[in-house]
Formats: sequence, structure tokens, C-alpha cells
Amino acid sequence: MSSPIITLTTDFGYRDPFVGIMKGVILDINPFATIVDITHGLSPQNILEAAIAIDMSYKSFPPEAIHIVVVDPGVGSARRPILVTNDHCHFVGPDNGVFSLVYNSSESISVVHVTAEHYFLPQTSATFHGRDIFAPVAAWFSRGIDISKFGDPITDYVTIPVPALVLVKKNILEGEVIYIDRFGNAITNINTQNIDDLRSSSPKGKPRVLVKGKEVPLKNHYSEAKDEGLYSLINSFGYLELFVYKGSASSHFGIAVGEKVGVVVS
Amino acid sequence: MSSPIITLTTDFGYRDPFVGIMKGVILDINPFATIVDITHGLSPQNILEAAIAIDMSYKSFPPEAIHIVVVDPGVGSARRPILVTNDHCHFVGPDNGVFSLVYNSSESISVVHVTAEHYFLPQTSATFHGRDIFAPVAAWFSRGIDISKFGDPITDYVTIPVPALVLVKKNILEGEVIYIDRFGNAITNINTQNIDDLRSSSPKGKPRVLVKGKEVPLKNHYSEAKDEGLYSLINSFGYLELFVYKGSASSHFGIAVGEKVGVVVS
Amino acid sequence: MSSPIITLTTDFGYRDPFVGIMKGVILDINPFATIVDITHGLSPQNILEAAIAIDMSYKSFPPEAIHIVVVDPGVGSARRPILVTNDHCHFVGPDNGVFSLVYNSSESISVVHVTAEHYFLPQTSATFHGRDIFAPVAAWFSRGIDISKFGDPITDYVTIPVPALVLVKKNILEGEVIYIDRFGNAITNINTQNIDDLRSSSPKGKPRVLVKGKEVPLKNHYSEAKDEGLYSLINSFGYLELFVYKGSASSHFGIAVGEKVGVVVS
Repeated sequence: MSSPIITLTTDFGYRDPFVGIMKGVILDINPFATIVDITHGLSPQNILEAAIAIDMSYKSFPPEAIHIVVVDPGVGSARRPILVTNDHCHFVGPDNGVFSLVYNSSESISVVHVTAEHYFLPQTSATFHGRDIFAPVAAWFSRGIDISKFGDPITDYVTIPVPALVLVKKNILEGEVIYIDRFGNAITNINTQNIDDLRSSSPKGKPRVLVKGKEVPLKNHYSEAKDEGLYSLINSFGYLELFVYKGSASSHFGIAVGEKVGVVVS
Repeated sequence: MSSPIITLTTDFGYRDPFVGIMKGVILDINPFATIVDITHGLSPQNILEAAIAIDMSYKSFPPEAIHIVVVDPGVGSARRPILVTNDHCHFVGPDNGVFSLVYNSSESISVVHVTAEHYFLPQTSATFHGRDIFAPVAAWFSRGIDISKFGDPITDYVTIPVPALVLVKKNILEGEVIYIDRFGNAITNINTQNIDDLRSSSPKGKPRVLVKGKEVPLKNHYSEAKDEGLYSLINSFGYLELFVYKGSASSHFGIAVGEKVGVVVS
Repeated sequence: MSSPIITLTTDFGYRDPFVGIMKGVILDINPFATIVDITHGLSPQNILEAAIAIDMSYKSFPPEAIHIVVVDPGVGSARRPILVTNDHCHFVGPDNGVFSLVYNSSESISVVHVTAEHYFLPQTSATFHGRDIFAPVAAWFSRGIDISKFGDPITDYVTIPVPALVLVKKNILEGEVIYIDRFGNAITNINTQNIDDLRSSSPKGKPRVLVKGKEVPLKNHYSEAKDEGLYSLINSFGYLELFVYKGSASSHFGIAVGEKVGVVVS
């Protein structure tokens, strides 16, 4: 039998020992767990960024994996620890909206408010629930303990507002940049389906991408762009992305999260 | 049987392949080892920071784990490689004081000067003992080889000076910031016990925290602070910590390692 | 039996979930794989740096390890995915020269152009072959599938120009800095063998290192340097390296990749 997978997605960064400490707690409870880092480089306390990162990632992992997400500015307050199960796998983290995009992308969702404190560490601090609650809950759950033992289902779990698309006209869609990656590529909230829907309004039209009032040519892959201009493509997650070949769209063209991006079919 | 755990705590950073190389050496000697990163983001050659990080971490790992720590400005010189065993687990690293806080926090300690060169790599370089000495020694030790085979016990192991508390008056204690974390939280060397001891001097008094001549309100958790002022709390390791809610105490208030922090009970 | 080792060396950085996603794909295909990070901090799209990093690393891993390298500015274009086998282990990555130094350091090499698309993910994007091609190919290969099933051998694999040494006179050699590490140490392309060869020209001479027209004293290890001057030594990989004790040769002396370094024996 292969070992259960527990992943970690946090804003803890790479300077401090906090992530290592969570792994120690997990291995102390379940020495057979396979622990995988998704990322610890999320912007501090940026719940939307965490929601995007885990939603990008979980489908690539085996079914039944347990994904811990800790971006938790409300640690120590009344916000609830939750254990989420969708049609593919499981999630453990704070009930602060960090799973908002997972809720959207899942066919089925059940959310349990974790109240069984005997699955926490014996002493629970007010500032490090990654170590004291989320890591041990995931580790105990990975040992096969039934989810009903952790607490009761809730339906009033928290979601955060996710930037929405605006259909300006029947052939004009406005979205925005929601994530800048390490290379400076700017990922928008406009996906292939959105563009296809728009095209159905003008079947003979071609989609054009507009940023800062200028057209941004649509390419198939990065190295099709032969100069240092701003280009766009459909990225590997199915979303429209702005890029500069071998450069940073973000720093070369001053594009940040929130930058409006239009798609016009005509 | 679960696999032996070997952790890594270094100042090697995340650009170079050095940490990966150490893992290769470990797996070549013990393919069944479970290797866990604690952190590689320690400030270069900062022995005190390494001493704090490993002391924060080791108790969260299972007993018998082997913790390699490599912050080693004296690599290649006469400083000794050591194998440390306390009441909980084991440590491998240079004898330069990197385990000073572990020595303080342990109920029992034995330190072996590792001289058995057949547990090193065949060729030992002058600049990368992480690869050539510490990784292979930990890996061989994880295979169950008796500690007496690695060398003889020593009692003159090196400790570094650790910032000490000053009892200014019977109700006034002065400590200092000893670690800034990724979020800009400033961790002091004043712990719960120190504050309780101080309170015994004035049983009806309440503790007040003073930084740069101003009082810093004491909270229970981060989100109790409702503005961007400087606050304090007892952190998850039992130490007094200065923080800004959703901000950086370090950059907003110019607090660095060494900043004096007072506690007054009156 | 120990589990197969798959390593990852990329320029994906530590902010985004891309590396974690690759690990998910690997574990979904081979849950028994042991995945090891070499580094993800390579300079974006710097193929030479990747070539140096993997060549520094692979010999420290057990034989039969599979090393994935993804620095891939041409992702989505016609550049081929390859599976490389040398006398020690295996490599998977783009055919863009990222294995140039491995080719040089190997006693034997065979390179297969991976064309068997049933070992890719079902949907292959144009921008993330780490997830869609390299991770699944390595994972399937780690399950013991014969290399002949992946594609046909090629001999016209790509190599990139690697900075070469110039023998200025029979006793004067000019090389250059090819890598700056996290500590600011500047690694050159001049190795022990090169210096020994030079000494054979003047058997009674001593080697002197010259940078920016000044002599840089040659030491045995870092802490032999007792001031903040620029020094040199033969590093743990057998190459001449410039350093500042407890400081950065790169920032203190303005040394970057490409800086010329001379060795004179006289």
C-alpha cells in the first residue's frame, strides 16, 4: 500500500523553521505519511492568492490526498478549523475563505467544523494553529479515522469574493489579472470557456485581447513571441495569461494583480 | 517499521544545489531515510539564528530523529564535527555553538567528537562538510550503528553567548529581540516563566511591556489588535513577541535583533 | 527494495505552486517514488546555470536516480523532450542544452527523443511541460518501463557553448567566473587538473591567481582568510573559487558571472 499524501501550502516563507515544525508534528502522528510542499511563498496573509494556488494544484495529486492550507491572519480568534472533502480529495485549514475556489471547482463538497480537540496537540497556542491544529488533524485523518469523528458538517462556511467577469456587451468581456507568477507572467480570470462563449455571439469574429487600451497579440506558446513586446496566450490551466518572452510582463509593462483585461470578439 | 528521520537546517539558501546534494549523499547511504527540511533560509553564517531555529523545532519531531545543522563559517579549520544526543533525539553538526540552546533546553546531553573518518565521504573537501562529513555521518548513524563507533565523548564542546535577561529591579526585567520571523514578528528572549517569576514579586501587579520607552499592549492573539499599532503577545513557543496585525513589527517600527524589551510588573 | 529516486531542478522559484504540481503528477503515476528537490532557485531561463547545477549534483545521488531538469524558455515550440542515460544515472528534460555539462562529464551517454505520448498527461499544454511531459515521463520510467518504449535514440542533441579556458602562454591560463553561489562565492571554470597541467610547464613555479589585475591569495579553506580581502581556494567540486571570509566576493568586489580570472605559474 502506498503511503497517504499530505501536502502543505502556506505563507510561512523559507526563512523560519515553521514549515519544518509542522512536518515533525505530522510524522510524529503518522510516520508513514508522504509530505509534499506545494508552496510556502504565498504573499503573507493573502487569502485569495492561497485560494488560487490550491485550486491550481489539487487536481494534479492522487485522489484521497489531504491538502493543508495555512494562510491565517485570524489565527487564535473564533474562526473555525475545517476539514473539507470534495469529489477528488480532502483539505484542512482555517474557515476564512481559503478554499473558496475549491468550492467553485468541485462537483460535490462537504465541510466539517473540526471540534474534536483530542486530535489537536495537547497544548494549543494562540498563534500557530498550523502546528497545533491543522498538522495534527490532517495526520490523524491520514491514519484512516472516520471524518465524522472530527466534528459536525456545516453549510455556512466562509467564502471570499473572487474577482468576477463583466460582460460589457455581448461580444466584449472584461476580466482582470488575479495572479502574477515567478516569471512575471500575469494570469487572468478569463478562461477558454469564457472566450468560447463570447465567440458564439459572433461566430465569424476572432478574439482580440486588450490591456491598457492596446491590443495584445494572442500566441500559442511563449517562444512564438519574437520580440520583447507584451503577448498573451491560454496557459496550462486554461486561463488567459499575459507574458513577455524571456522577460517579465509584470515589471516590463507595469501589470499588477487587478489590472483590467478585455476580450473582444468582432 | 517506519523509516528513520533526518532533518536539515542550514544557511545554504534556495538558489544553489547544495542542499539537494546533501540529500543525495544521505540516500546513497541510507535509501530508507525520510529527509525533512527544517529551513535553509538562515542568515548566512549566523550561528545564533541557527541555534534558535533548531531549538524551536526539534521537540516537534519524533524521538530518535537525527537533526543535521550546518551553519559553519569555520568549515575546513580545526573545529570538530560532533554528534549530540539529548533526552529526545540526536544532532549532527559543527562544534561551533550551533547547539548552544539545545544544550540549555535538554535534560541530559552527551556530545561525541566524530573522528571515525570511514563514515565520511572518501574524499573530504575543505569547504563542504555538509556533503562530505555531516550528511554521511547522519546517514550511517541512521542505519543503527552504535554511537561509540563514531568517536569519543567530549565535555569541552563549544557554546556561544546567548543574550541574557537583566533583572533591573525586583519588578523590572529587561530582555531583547533575538529573532525576526518572515512576517516581521519580533521574538524576544523573555518567556512565560520569566514573567510569572516577576509577577511573584508584586502579586497584585499586572505585567506591562515596554519598547523604545512606550508601552506595548499585551494581547492574546494577533487579530485582537484592531489597528496597525505595535502589540505584544506570548507566542506559540512560550516567548514574548512584538507584532503588528497583518503587518511587520520589524519594518513598521524599526525593530531589529538586539532591540531592548522591558517587562514591568506594578 | 528502496524506492526509485526522482530529483527536480528548475527555475520555477518558490512562490508558485508549479513544483508541487509536478510532484503530484509523479506520485499519481508512481506512489513509491522518493522525490528530492535539488533546487528551484535557478535564474529564470538560464540554461547554463541549470547545466552547471545538475552537473555539480548528480554524482552525489545513488546510481539509477532520475534527474528532471526544467529550464525551458522554448516550452511549447519544436524543441524535443529527451531522456538521457549516462554511466551513472538518468536525466529527463528539454533538448535545449541543459545537459551540456553532463554530456562532458560522462563516460558514456545515450539520448532518447521521447515521442511516446501515452506517457505524457492526456492533455498537453503549450506552457507547462514540467507537469505534462517531464514529470509523467520520469514517473513512468521510474516504474521500470524499458527506455526503448519512450522513443528512439538521437545523436544530434543540443549542446550550448560553455565558457572555455584560454592558454595565453604556456604558463598563463585565463578562465572566468561561471557561477555565483548564495554566499557570494564566485566559482570559476578552472579546475585542479588545469592548474596541475600548467604547473608541469614550470615545475618549480607556484600558481598565482589574478583578478582585475591584482593577485588573489590562494588559501586552503575559508577561515584561513583573516581579513575581508578577496581570496581564492580550490572548492569542494575541484574548481577555483573566489571568496571573502564571512562576506560576499560578488558584492564586495563587484564580481559577476563572466569576470576573467587568470592563473600564472612562475
